[in-house]
Amino acid sequence: MPGMKSPEAHCAASATATPHVVQPHKQALLKRLNRVQGQVRGIAQMIEDDRYCVDVLTQVAAIQSALDAVGLQLLEDHTRGCVAAAVKAGRGEQAIAELMTAVRRFAR
Amino acid sequence: MPGMKSPEAHCAASATATPHVVQPHKQALLKRLNRVQGQVRGIAQMIEDDRYCVDVLTQVAAIQSALDAVGLQLLEDHTRGCVAAAVKAGRGEQAIAELMTAVRRFAR
Amino acid sequence: MPGMKSPEAHCAASATATPHVVQPHKQALLKRLNRVQGQVRGIAQMIEDDRYCVDVLTQVAAIQSALDAVGLQLLEDHTRGCVAAAVKAGRGEQAIAELMTAVRRFAR
Amino acid sequence: MPGMKSPEAHCAASATATPHVVQPHKQALLKRLNRVQGQVRGIAQMIEDDRYCVDVLTQVAAIQSALDAVGLQLLEDHTRGCVAAAVKAGRGEQAIAELMTAVRRFAR
Repeated sequence: MPGMKSPEAHCAASATATPHVVQPHKQALLKRLNRVQGQVRGIAQMIEDDRYCVDVLTQVAAIQSALDAVGLQLLEDHTRGCVAAAVKAGRGEQAIAELMTAVRRFAR
Repeated sequence: MPGMKSPEAHCAASATATPHVVQPHKQALLKRLNRVQGQVRGIAQMIEDDRYCVDVLTQVAAIQSALDAVGLQLLEDHTRGCVAAAVKAGRGEQAIAELMTAVRRFAR
Repeated sequence: MPGMKSPEAHCAASATATPHVVQPHKQALLKRLNRVQGQVRGIAQMIEDDRYCVDVLTQVAAIQSALDAVGLQLLEDHTRGCVAAAVKAGRGEQAIAELMTAVRRFAR
Repeated sequence: MPGMKSPEAHCAASATATPHVVQPHKQALLKRLNRVQGQVRGIAQMIEDDRYCVDVLTQVAAIQSALDAVGLQLLEDHTRGCVAAAVKAGRGEQAIAELMTAVRRFAR
C-alpha cells in the first residue's frame, strides 16, 4: 500500500523524518503533557507571587510524578513495540542495550 | 513602614494571600521554569510527530533534571530563609519537621 | 539429559525450587553484594562511633549506588534472558508487563 | 568536666576521632542496619540459588527503601542537631551548604 510504513520504520534510530506509525498512547500522552504545561505555568505564577516555598515544592514534586508516568509509559510502549520487534527479528542485543540506557536515566 | 512585611511573613504556612517578600533567586527560577515549559512543548511535538521513543525519553529525563534543580534551589532558599529564621526564634522543631517532609518528596 | 533444565525453567515465576540455570553475571553480582555487606557493617560502625552524620550519609549514598548497579544488572540480564525468550515464544505480553513493574520499582 | 564533650564537638567536620555525643536514634539506626545486613545476605543467597530475577529485584528495592529511611533519619537528626546549633551560633551559612550537598545525594 503506497504511503504505508511498517511499525518498525519508527523504531530505527535512523528513522526517516516523518514516520507514519502511531504511538499507541499518543492522545493520552499529549493530554498528560498538556496538563504538565499548565502545572509548570502554575509553579511560575506561585514563584511570581512569592508563595510559600513548601507549597511550591509540593507542586514541583507533582510534576515530577506526572513526568515519571509519561516516561514509564514511553518505556513500556517502546519495549512492547520496537524492542519486541527487534528481538523477534534476531536483533535484540542492540535494542536491549539501548533500552537499558533509557531505563538507567529513570533509575534511582 | 506601612505595606512592608518582614521576610518571616512569607515563611508562615498560614501566610497572608499576598506576601511581599522577594524569593532570592526569583528571576533565575522563573527563567528556568520558562525553559522547562519550552521543553515540555518540545516533547509534545516529538510525540505528535511520532519521533523515536528513546529520543523522547532523553528529553523527559532532561526536564526531570531541570525540575530537580528548581526543587533543590527552593529547598536551599527555604532552609536559609524560613527554617533558619524559625530556628533562631526558637521555633525550629516544626520548621525542620516540615523541611524534612519536603526533602522526603525529593528523596530517592 | 536427566537433571538438565532449559534456561526458561528459571524464567517462570512458578520456577521449581532448584533451577539449574546459571545467572550470567552470578559471580560478579555475588562479589558486589559481598562488598555491599562490608559497607553496611562499616556504616553501623560509624554510627556506633558517633561519627559525623554527613560522612555517614556519604557512605549510605555509596551503598545506594552499588545497589542501583546490582538492580540494573539484574534488570538487563532478565530482559536479555527471560523477557527475550518469552517474546520469541509469543508470550511477550505478560513478561513485559512484569518487567515494567520491576522497572517502576527502580524508577524515580 | 573532664572527658565530657559538648554536642557540637560531634558536629565539626574536623571532629576528634572519638566524640562522645550520642546520636539520638542510635539504637534504632543500628537495629535497622542489622536488618539491612540480613537482607543483603538474603539477596546473595537468592542469586546463589538462581532464583527468579524479578523476585531478587523486589528484595533489592526493599533494601533501597530501608536505606532511604536510614538516610532521611540521619538527615533529620543532623538538621535538628548540628545545623540548628550552627544557625543559632551565627555559623549557619556553611552548615546549610553542607546539608544541601547531603540532600542532593539523596535527591531524585
